[in-house]
Amino acid sequence: MEIIRVPRIMHDTSMKFCMTGRTIGFVPTMGALHEGHLSLVRRAKYENDVAVVSIFVNPIQFGPSEDFEKYPRDIEGDTEKLKKEEADIIFMPEISSLYPDGFLTHIEAEKISEKLCGAFRPGHFRGVATVVTKLLNIARPTRAYFGLKDFQQYVIIRKLVKDLNMDIDIVGCPTVREQDGLAMSSRNAYLDRVQREAAPVIYRCLTEASELIKSGIINAQYIKELMHERLLKEPAVSVIDYAGVYEPETFDELSEIKGDTLLAVAVRIGGTRLIDNMLVESRENPDLNSGNIKNKVSQKKEI
Amino acid sequence: MEIIRVPRIMHDTSMKFCMTGRTIGFVPTMGALHEGHLSLVRRAKYENDVAVVSIFVNPIQFGPSEDFEKYPRDIEGDTEKLKKEEADIIFMPEISSLYPDGFLTHIEAEKISEKLCGAFRPGHFRGVATVVTKLLNIARPTRAYFGLKDFQQYVIIRKLVKDLNMDIDIVGCPTVREQDGLAMSSRNAYLDRVQREAAPVIYRCLTEASELIKSGIINAQYIKELMHERLLKEPAVSVIDYAGVYEPETFDELSEIKGDTLLAVAVRIGGTRLIDNMLVESRENPDLNSGNIKNKVSQKKEI
Repeated sequence: MEIIRVPRIMHDTSMKFCMTGRTIGFVPTMGALHEGHLSLVRRAKYENDVAVVSIFVNPIQFGPSEDFEKYPRDIEGDTEKLKKEEADIIFMPEISSLYPDGFLTHIEAEKISEKLCGAFRPGHFRGVATVVTKLLNIARPTRAYFGLKDFQQYVIIRKLVKDLNMDIDIVGCPTVREQDGLAMSSRNAYLDRVQREAAPVIYRCLTEASELIKSGIINAQYIKELMHERLLKEPAVSVIDYAGVYEPETFDELSEIKGDTLLAVAVRIGGTRLIDNMLVESRENPDLNSGNIKNKVSQKKEI
Repeated sequence: MEIIRVPRIMHDTSMKFCMTGRTIGFVPTMGALHEGHLSLVRRAKYENDVAVVSIFVNPIQFGPSEDFEKYPRDIEGDTEKLKKEEADIIFMPEISSLYPDGFLTHIEAEKISEKLCGAFRPGHFRGVATVVTKLLNIARPTRAYFGLKDFQQYVIIRKLVKDLNMDIDIVGCPTVREQDGLAMSSRNAYLDRVQREAAPVIYRCLTEASELIKSGIINAQYIKELMHERLLKEPAVSVIDYAGVYEPETFDELSEIKGDTLLAVAVRIGGTRLIDNMLVESRENPDLNSGNIKNKVSQKKEI
């Protein structure tokens, strides 16, 4: 396993793979790797000749009052885990090499970046879109892998890659959960014991809402109210940023459930912001709509 | 000479050239080709194995009250000219293939996009940055060629290519002028006889300002006032959008001339907006400063 820190060297290494016809699977991460990340690495490894994993805590996707400084970092542990997974390359650029003095270009996927998490973290998805574009241009992968826990991020990246005619498959991979249903996240490390025990309420809330939809309830407002009620019953949940029923491409809030539906939640437990979501395929027209969603989750490249 | 209209076909054609080690020189244009464009094509042809020219009048770089509809179009004439220059490929995409329904991603080089022309054409450089990024991703050139008449555009594109880690040389090429000094522009076709005769005042104004700097005058305000005076003496000049003395990387207005200096003008002659500029290398420290500018005008790729 090779560790590369310089963007030019990463780029030239990838180009050599391209020129010899080898496919590259790329997993961009902010490190503090958990089973969710490792499931992406495994898939990248399985579907490609070479697996490249980047570790970069991207300052421009954190707001001024957010947790950039204290975001968990564990380079040694990460390296060990990636060695076990037989990743081929770790790309660990310095902040100054990705954002030298005078850096001023940004990428924005309008509308879809302003909804859900975007409404609570202004500039967040602009930072994500910009760094991912940079990393894709440096690593030049055949396929790039993203966890569906960050569903909005996945949709935004898939959209910008299509809109900017980048020839890369964006692959969404299922959320990996703890035994009690809590979605794996590097931020789970912030939770104390009481908070950690309370956190699976998010998963239970999503599961219940999903069951309601599957049982035929189409009143989205009713489901949203039940979700809020469920979350607020848990004393550890201090704030609900959002919890509700959304159209999975535009993130518009739904009043009536018609086709595929995104259930999504962002709450604060103590000082920790946790997100999770669940896609519910349409009951009424499963063929048509599940086709739509499947198409989204493993989109074939289109330029 | 091949004509390609479909982005995917253009992309795959370029990839074939890349995979066989051939270099691609790319000239993005809006058509209505003149000697300025053709000088870029010649250089692209000379410096690369394959010359690709795109013709696409990009709607998103025009403001709502601007000349998108009436912008000159001459596909037949352009094709003839490019055949003579032995261009290898013309890429002529449909608007709907570059901007399908639901398109929502944009690229912005902040600060430098808001100065000079950016202040008078809000959103213009965002539209330019977005379409050029798309075209570069589709055509995947080794080098891309831009005329220095659009100096601000050139600086912005060079900057975004560097900031987004795109592995492409951005080459700036000297402005080509009519015999009387008027910078060649597709928009010159809008001028009537009287306006056309008046238009070289822009070049004369720039030349005189440049001579003043070379003679040792360092008071930029004085030079700016002379430029305005010179332009306003010409009755055909109806509005001066800007005319003055600027730092050539940031486009900040200068009060004192110290190093390399950008003289830049945008005026309206009748309903036609014309721009031109001149770079003046530093007299005091020619080695240091001309090196700086030269470096800018034929930047080596950096990722």
